[in-house]
Amino acid sequence: MRIGELSRRTGVPVPTIKYYVREGLLSQGELTSPNQAHYGEEHERRLRLIRALLEVGGLKVAAIAEVLGAVDDPGRPLHKVLGTTASRLGAQGEVEDDAEAAAAHAAVEELIARRGWRTHDSNAAADELARALAAMSRIGHGAFTELLDEYADAAELVARADLGYVDRRVAVEDLVESVVVGTVLGEAVFNAMRRLAHVDASARLYGGGGGAEGCA
Amino acid sequence: MRIGELSRRTGVPVPTIKYYVREGLLSQGELTSPNQAHYGEEHERRLRLIRALLEVGGLKVAAIAEVLGAVDDPGRPLHKVLGTTASRLGAQGEVEDDAEAAAAHAAVEELIARRGWRTHDSNAAADELARALAAMSRIGHGAFTELLDEYADAAELVARADLGYVDRRVAVEDLVESVVVGTVLGEAVFNAMRRLAHVDASARLYGGGGGAEGCA
Repeated sequence: MRIGELSRRTGVPVPTIKYYVREGLLSQGELTSPNQAHYGEEHERRLRLIRALLEVGGLKVAAIAEVLGAVDDPGRPLHKVLGTTASRLGAQGEVEDDAEAAAAHAAVEELIARRGWRTHDSNAAADELARALAAMSRIGHGAFTELLDEYADAAELVARADLGYVDRRVAVEDLVESVVVGTVLGEAVFNAMRRLAHVDASARLYGGGGGAEGCA
Repeated sequence: MRIGELSRRTGVPVPTIKYYVREGLLSQGELTSPNQAHYGEEHERRLRLIRALLEVGGLKVAAIAEVLGAVDDPGRPLHKVLGTTASRLGAQGEVEDDAEAAAAHAAVEELIARRGWRTHDSNAAADELARALAAMSRIGHGAFTELLDEYADAAELVARADLGYVDRRVAVEDLVESVVVGTVLGEAVFNAMRRLAHVDASARLYGGGGGAEGCA
């Protein structure tokens, strides 16, 4: 199809498609004449993936370029792709070097040892977890670390469900892309679900929080 | 304390503090002379809260102003504050009106009815959940809805832990602020934890993903 048709099918304006091609997110279509290119279904699919990472996942264009670069690199093992994705998803902030940061890092290391979780030295998620806990501690919520094992139970449940889905549903050639999709969009799914569960739990605990039951 | 001391204690530059005051995130200190203001511990605490929402929670300044405005409004019931927070946390995107969007909305409504969750008509989280599911469906992962109940189990676990913490640990006058902190920062905590659990689960399932066990 021509770029106009690709735009119509995906709802992405032509200049935006050209921008994605320039930034390396989307491969150039096959040139059929000096200024006309032919796009296929793989372009359509990739374009939908880019929009999903952007709009639902909240990733920036540069982060998407890096994540998709990892997806497209056939030599890159799965756990390295996951590492790249994780490092682009987390909040980027300055690392502070105070007592709260040290205590939070220690708490995370203890948690990982206690759960027997296998990790990498470069695992950005461990640093992000420590940063979030340190920030809570600085505003008087150091006791939040009491919840770490309940959070870890829930995280293991979700991770098992995700991996089971990938294992059951996904062809090997789509594995890496699916894991990235699951990491980014699955996060949006879980966050929304947690907020729904909060409203329900607070309605039950404090009353007044609920309207009609079972109405979206 | 003077603004310089407040800046030194929190690591936030003086011009940034003045910007937060102008934007309504932080109240003006008590004027002790026409161009000198006195700041107290409540300012220091609020400033740390702003930085945490910004750096760990990834909220923008306008979103923080809205969320803190809800926190500071004594007449606003807890579930409305939660609703405001939820609507500023979720990805903002255009709502598409296609078959995938309709199916996703139906799946979310069924889920809410099946779990007996109490919700509000205005619950932004339900819309965000539907948007994420529709985006997955558009890139060929419609079967992801099979995982909704496993995700919901995990979300209920986390929500119960959060509410239990608030109920046990938090003085009534800090309740609303704590719920906001828990929603925003707890999300960062869970997301990081889920990524850690992914690395562990993928190491167990596919091998090669893990290094030394129990090392952060």
